[in-house]
Amino acid sequence: MKRPRPSALRRWLARTPPPAVLAVGYLTLIAVGGLLLMLPPMTHTPITLSDALFTSTSAVTVTGLNVVDTELVYAFWGQLVIAVLIQLGGLGLMTFAVLIWSALGRPLGITQGTYLREDLNQTSYGKLTRLVWTILRIVVMAEVAGAMLLCLSFMPHHGLGPGLWHAIFHSVSAFNNAGFSTFSPGLTGYALDPVVNVVIPVLFIAGGIGYVVIADLYQRAFWRGWSLHTRMMMVGTAILIVGGVAMTAILEWDNPNTLAQYHSITARLTVAWFQGVTTRTAGFNSTDIAGLEESTSFMYMILMIIGAGPTSTGGGLKVTTVFVMLLATWAFLRRRTEVTGFGRSIPLGDVLKAMALMAMASAVIVTAIFLLLISEGGDFVDIAFEVSSAFGTVGLSRAYTPELSEFGRAVIMVVMFLGRVGPLTLGFFLATRMVPRVRYPAGQVHLG
Amino acid sequence: MKRPRPSALRRWLARTPPPAVLAVGYLTLIAVGGLLLMLPPMTHTPITLSDALFTSTSAVTVTGLNVVDTELVYAFWGQLVIAVLIQLGGLGLMTFAVLIWSALGRPLGITQGTYLREDLNQTSYGKLTRLVWTILRIVVMAEVAGAMLLCLSFMPHHGLGPGLWHAIFHSVSAFNNAGFSTFSPGLTGYALDPVVNVVIPVLFIAGGIGYVVIADLYQRAFWRGWSLHTRMMMVGTAILIVGGVAMTAILEWDNPNTLAQYHSITARLTVAWFQGVTTRTAGFNSTDIAGLEESTSFMYMILMIIGAGPTSTGGGLKVTTVFVMLLATWAFLRRRTEVTGFGRSIPLGDVLKAMALMAMASAVIVTAIFLLLISEGGDFVDIAFEVSSAFGTVGLSRAYTPELSEFGRAVIMVVMFLGRVGPLTLGFFLATRMVPRVRYPAGQVHLG
Ligand SMILES: [K+]
Ligand SMILES: [K+]
Repeated sequence: MKRPRPSALRRWLARTPPPAVLAVGYLTLIAVGGLLLMLPPMTHTPITLSDALFTSTSAVTVTGLNVVDTELVYAFWGQLVIAVLIQLGGLGLMTFAVLIWSALGRPLGITQGTYLREDLNQTSYGKLTRLVWTILRIVVMAEVAGAMLLCLSFMPHHGLGPGLWHAIFHSVSAFNNAGFSTFSPGLTGYALDPVVNVVIPVLFIAGGIGYVVIADLYQRAFWRGWSLHTRMMMVGTAILIVGGVAMTAILEWDNPNTLAQYHSITARLTVAWFQGVTTRTAGFNSTDIAGLEESTSFMYMILMIIGAGPTSTGGGLKVTTVFVMLLATWAFLRRRTEVTGFGRSIPLGDVLKAMALMAMASAVIVTAIFLLLISEGGDFVDIAFEVSSAFGTVGLSRAYTPELSEFGRAVIMVVMFLGRVGPLTLGFFLATRMVPRVRYPAGQVHLG
Repeated sequence: MKRPRPSALRRWLARTPPPAVLAVGYLTLIAVGGLLLMLPPMTHTPITLSDALFTSTSAVTVTGLNVVDTELVYAFWGQLVIAVLIQLGGLGLMTFAVLIWSALGRPLGITQGTYLREDLNQTSYGKLTRLVWTILRIVVMAEVAGAMLLCLSFMPHHGLGPGLWHAIFHSVSAFNNAGFSTFSPGLTGYALDPVVNVVIPVLFIAGGIGYVVIADLYQRAFWRGWSLHTRMMMVGTAILIVGGVAMTAILEWDNPNTLAQYHSITARLTVAWFQGVTTRTAGFNSTDIAGLEESTSFMYMILMIIGAGPTSTGGGLKVTTVFVMLLATWAFLRRRTEVTGFGRSIPLGDVLKAMALMAMASAVIVTAIFLLLISEGGDFVDIAFEVSSAFGTVGLSRAYTPELSEFGRAVIMVVMFLGRVGPLTLGFFLATRMVPRVRYPAGQVHLG
């Protein structure tokens, strides 16, 4: 106990595997955030430790499920803490740690590099510093621009000061796919607002597609210059957006709880657009989620579990994981010994990683649903929806989160944590190598 | 059109891939069975073509879902047709075809052998004839013994003639995991009958574990002599039986609709035993399935989707497929480049096959649930339970089958067909070979 603390920390960092460091980091952030939210200036009315920890977990994992109302219960300072937790959680603790290290003028050594790599699934050490600065530039640019544009919608209703804060909060929440809102009814009051319907989706799609893809789009030629990963993400995201929006419109068109409360075709299409595109991981809502048809709810569960892209602010299995599974199945059916897509071969290790991710995700989701069915009184669809939402760190709920028992809250907190940290830490196991027969040049895919 | 028909058939067989032949065979059997059931002597009251085709599909795929009551609607001749369809479907059309070929004294040529191999996932041509005779001996012995024992329970209540018929029908239905019953309320009237509670489970466990395993148990030394496949099946089946029965007892103990209607502990354990063990693929019920807790219903969905063993009369993903997935995930987490279990390595082609099966099963189940949610009015749990039951060819229902619309019936018929024929035909693609690094001796696993 006589040694100075930093040295003990450094020795711990050196002997602990990166996934464990990452998990401990997130847990620490959640604990600190929860304790901060308990302080009197944070809330209008006192909250329990369970309320505070749930909010903190939901913010750090950028999920957006809430047991207490963000607008009514949290004061400005509480909302600021939530915004900071969202930003730290969304960027990834490790990115932030390296940012601080390099800001302090320390060389980006191999040890620190390992942690960042863990968080971003990036294999080349050399490009890391550049990547981190690219990320930071994108985040600041996107969030400032988003906040400025959102002021156009929020200031007229709420005045200059509160309007600015709502705009900043929603910009941070949107870019980080957190789905938290400083409005009690979410964005239903802005369901037809053109600025909200463009700016917020642009922010969360950009945040959810992954930094690697954004950098590729920014620096390389269209399609031919893109990596296999970027191609998969762009095609997969396009399919999921078009499919999600179209199916929402078709299934909900005549539902009086959702689209049919609007008479004009444009209004219905606007709401279908927003709700269809937000479901994969952003988790904002511009209509009543508990009023959705069961068919739409089921489709949303699937979309939430698929989620967004790796190295992004989104959660879930990830688009590339599902894509690789589909390509592997297709290769199997065509009796190919090699999995290929977009003219690139996919290493067998990646296929096995996708499979392991799927198997573990299924285990987590099934176990959580089973536990909640036993512990909670409640509808199966509500419970399955809540668990899918937590695993995909989406944050949509059929008005079920506040009804959870203490045990139910614990289950959902664990699922949010695993949904966010699990796939990241599994990236660690990418190191597993198989011996594939290479015919096509090998492409690199991020699966976590 | 001047050529004789057998020659045209033979040419078609020669140029059509075996999975297509198998599928066409099953479809033909379903169509013929459906038309037969429309004949006046078959039923007490007229049935529609849709009723008849649904019954025929359910019988040929040994599922046991029913839109009309087998006891009240079908006369003796109809029940006999159903029993024959069950027997043909359970043994596998191709096994039967080869039995007939060899009974006619024709040599078991390479062409016919391919079809049988397809159906039984057996790779060595030489052992086929022996295997077929082993199968037939087992079937006849088991069903005759089962029927004789069941007479002890059924004859006192129903008289000699009807008692004998009930015993024969239930013996055939049990060994083939069909779950059809000539009693309207299923076996609830015999929920505490000791003979029924022993004989029927023994029959369907024997039928569901697969002929290959039975032959191994019969001919080889305990454990050391068993193949990797037999070890996996025995361990997996034991885990699923113990887990299913224990969880049924725990979850339903105080449910007045099911176990709590009995006062004695022995009675409750007896019902938990029967219902827990029958769920994986047999599909008999000795209690009210619609009265089960939602947690139990969800667990049963998982058990039904897992199903029984390959080369057996059961359906579903198969125990070995799930086992291989778990072993592969475990190997991945331990950063092993090779999947191993019970001291044998599992070829990478088998791992990919398991993955492809899982992916396609998920696609079928999700699509079917989605379609039924759109087309049918009904509870999500009822629908998901019905689809899981159809895919696993189990036949349990939360009293939902008779409520299906014509479109809903079509969906369930397709799922039953895919659940039975899909995994069998996928066995065809086992031919895909990877290049594994061999360290352990390679073991053979059946995944379909
Ligand atoms: K979210
Ligand atoms: K069955």
